Amino acid sequence: MSDIQLQPLKGFRQLYPEKKVIQSYVLNKAREVARLFGFEEYDGPLLEPIELYLNKSSRELVEEQSFKVNDKNNNTYLMRPEMTPTLARMVAAKYKELILPIRYFNAGLRYRYEAPQKGRDREFYQMDFDIIGSKSEISDIEILAIVATLFKSLGANKDNFVLYLNSRKILAKKLAEIGISSDQNKLVMSQVDRKEKISADEFEKLLIETNITNDQVKGVNRLLNDTKGYREEFKSILDLAKQYEIDDLIEVNPTVVRGLDYYTGIVFEAKSKGKLNRSLMGGGRYDNLVASYGATEAIGGVGFALSDSVALAFMEEFGLLPQLNPVPSQALVTMLDASATNIALKTAFRLRSSGINSEVYPDSSAKLDKQLRYADKKQIPIVVIIGPDEVKNNTITVKYMNERKQETLSVEELIQKLKK
Amino acid sequence: MSDIQLQPLKGFRQLYPEKKVIQSYVLNKAREVARLFGFEEYDGPLLEPIELYLNKSSRELVEEQSFKVNDKNNNTYLMRPEMTPTLARMVAAKYKELILPIRYFNAGLRYRYEAPQKGRDREFYQMDFDIIGSKSEISDIEILAIVATLFKSLGANKDNFVLYLNSRKILAKKLAEIGISSDQNKLVMSQVDRKEKISADEFEKLLIETNITNDQVKGVNRLLNDTKGYREEFKSILDLAKQYEIDDLIEVNPTVVRGLDYYTGIVFEAKSKGKLNRSLMGGGRYDNLVASYGATEAIGGVGFALSDSVALAFMEEFGLLPQLNPVPSQALVTMLDASATNIALKTAFRLRSSGINSEVYPDSSAKLDKQLRYADKKQIPIVVIIGPDEVKNNTITVKYMNERKQETLSVEELIQKLKK
Repeated sequence: MSDIQLQPLKGFRQLYPEKKVIQSYVLNKAREVARLFGFEEYDGPLLEPIELYLNKSSRELVEEQSFKVNDKNNNTYLMRPEMTPTLARMVAAKYKELILPIRYFNAGLRYRYEAPQKGRDREFYQMDFDIIGSKSEISDIEILAIVATLFKSLGANKDNFVLYLNSRKILAKKLAEIGISSDQNKLVMSQVDRKEKISADEFEKLLIETNITNDQVKGVNRLLNDTKGYREEFKSILDLAKQYEIDDLIEVNPTVVRGLDYYTGIVFEAKSKGKLNRSLMGGGRYDNLVASYGATEAIGGVGFALSDSVALAFMEEFGLLPQLNPVPSQALVTMLDASATNIALKTAFRLRSSGINSEVYPDSSAKLDKQLRYADKKQIPIVVIIGPDEVKNNTITVKYMNERKQETLSVEELIQKLKK
Repeated sequence: MSDIQLQPLKGFRQLYPEKKVIQSYVLNKAREVARLFGFEEYDGPLLEPIELYLNKSSRELVEEQSFKVNDKNNNTYLMRPEMTPTLARMVAAKYKELILPIRYFNAGLRYRYEAPQKGRDREFYQMDFDIIGSKSEISDIEILAIVATLFKSLGANKDNFVLYLNSRKILAKKLAEIGISSDQNKLVMSQVDRKEKISADEFEKLLIETNITNDQVKGVNRLLNDTKGYREEFKSILDLAKQYEIDDLIEVNPTVVRGLDYYTGIVFEAKSKGKLNRSLMGGGRYDNLVASYGATEAIGGVGFALSDSVALAFMEEFGLLPQLNPVPSQALVTMLDASATNIALKTAFRLRSSGINSEVYPDSSAKLDKQLRYADKKQIPIVVIIGPDEVKNNTITVKYMNERKQETLSVEELIQKLKK
């Protein structure tokens, strides 16, 4: 047997309980926030036909950054790199029966064939929140409020992250005002998307390559630097943000355009104020996506997704990860010798029947010391000891591990104590 | 856009909330039982190298019943068809640091490239329970007790299912007693595995093909029909079963041998007493598996897995599926016109800040009737109505949908009422 099998695939997850319990904590926080905002949980298939993503997600995501599977008829499927196309298809298939607008939540596995790095795995959970069936700005602000509430529920505040807000519609309008045609618009936007990662000179060079005039290049630069004037356009949504007390988290940022091709209105991302120099999550409005899967009406949608990988890396940096013991046991039932086995099992049965999480030490020949060490290492607070005396007297000896004391009583008495 | 994209892949899941909520109910029941028995949750990668399964799982499972993925270096991976090999590898990699015995639980996606049928999907969740690091019969009975507790927690009882118990070790011993060599043993067992699905004549024919003598064929038949004598061998574990009050669920059945190659001791499966003519779940003891991934000691293990697909089909047959509304909202905040928007949002903010699950109707131009119909269809019990009067008086009108009554009060008064 080669050693390589002792390692999981690069960028894939192997979570022992002490890690899994923290991941579950994050996913459950997201689930709680979803419920707080009235979101229902749904699920979709992990394999999807490659056609589902073509002309919707970015070309790079589909062609280079996805794991592919062929069926026996040689059709190609992707291990889903994102969830929104699946959801849009589900809505398109049933929108006449659904009670619109829907508020849907999913926390599920996603796959990206990218180079793993801090906060980015090839296998991760993504928490998706979407409102579909409404084109209203109220839906936009609801989604932004969820982002803020989720980060706050994970312990973060405005010292840790900023919520960059933009609108493709507004940016497009502003570009049109300086004479950039709708054809060139998309090209210019994809250069704007890179601006933060390159120098001013490089950015200018890229703009010139989109075949806009020198005046227009200057216009684009002026537009992107005049955040105050640009921010005016967001007045109504920023007013709504005040009602949710999240206006101090939001910064209008004209360079945020997000990579996915389906966004039509607001786009936004959270950015860490720490060393993790990555977008923490992203989202936006996609008013034409559901129709593109066959709905006969244009059904508005807005949503975002956050990966557990980046959330965990972010929380780690700011010391927000909780200390959690994955061990659920309140009591460990031990036996001094084999003669105690039946009573030990009966005791565990009665504890569990009363809803008390319990385990039985499975080796009756193990010395009591070893059994106690096991409880100690796992931080199980109560050890029930059963030996010949206890069997004879129909009692149990209860050792309280944190208090270094013990007492002899009946099982029912212990249950009463623990249920208080 | 072709219609085919409106359908998920055959045998794959597309769960709208009314189905997802029932699946979550089942998975959460399993999680509760896991905690009750002191099990910790872990997770592993969904893609695994094909070598992980070779010579461990059945050849059919690996070669024909799995979805395969190639990486860019043309290595082949399987979308995990089962979890036990992953767990065994994880334990082998770290058994010197782990606090043994471990009690581990996982509920995750598995993939089988089989023909879908009632209770069998290509994509499903499997709930795995394993105790590793103990060769004791107490671990065996703990695992059987979990199976029973889980089925009971889902509402099933001995009228709905039976727990078939066997032991490969005991069957092998009995076969040796009638002169069947250890070489022939495995062949004979794999025929025994088929016995239930074929006629007595066909079974005899298959036995003869394993090259055992006519006398031995008769011996095998005698052995498999003499359940009373065979049951004697299970006396000690059946005694332990009495302590957990599960002895009435267990039936010793010498023909149950389970398909996976790694089982070494007890094997068992649950069988529906209804029309669903399928094994509901299976498991057994695998004492050599961890060592086969590189542990230098033989580390005992025992466990089982249950799929949500079969559990849901079983529960459906016996009317055990609960009626659950996936909508978490306690309150819907509506607005009579756009002037009420800010106050409506502020109201939703205050409700949510008090932990009251709430949604906002996102379209201020929608007639109140439409907004109330939305609440009614989704069975949201409380509608908060905000119009010009409420804005002026700093009040809210609360409509109780089930009682057909309404009252006007302050937000804080509503919160106090709901938090009681």
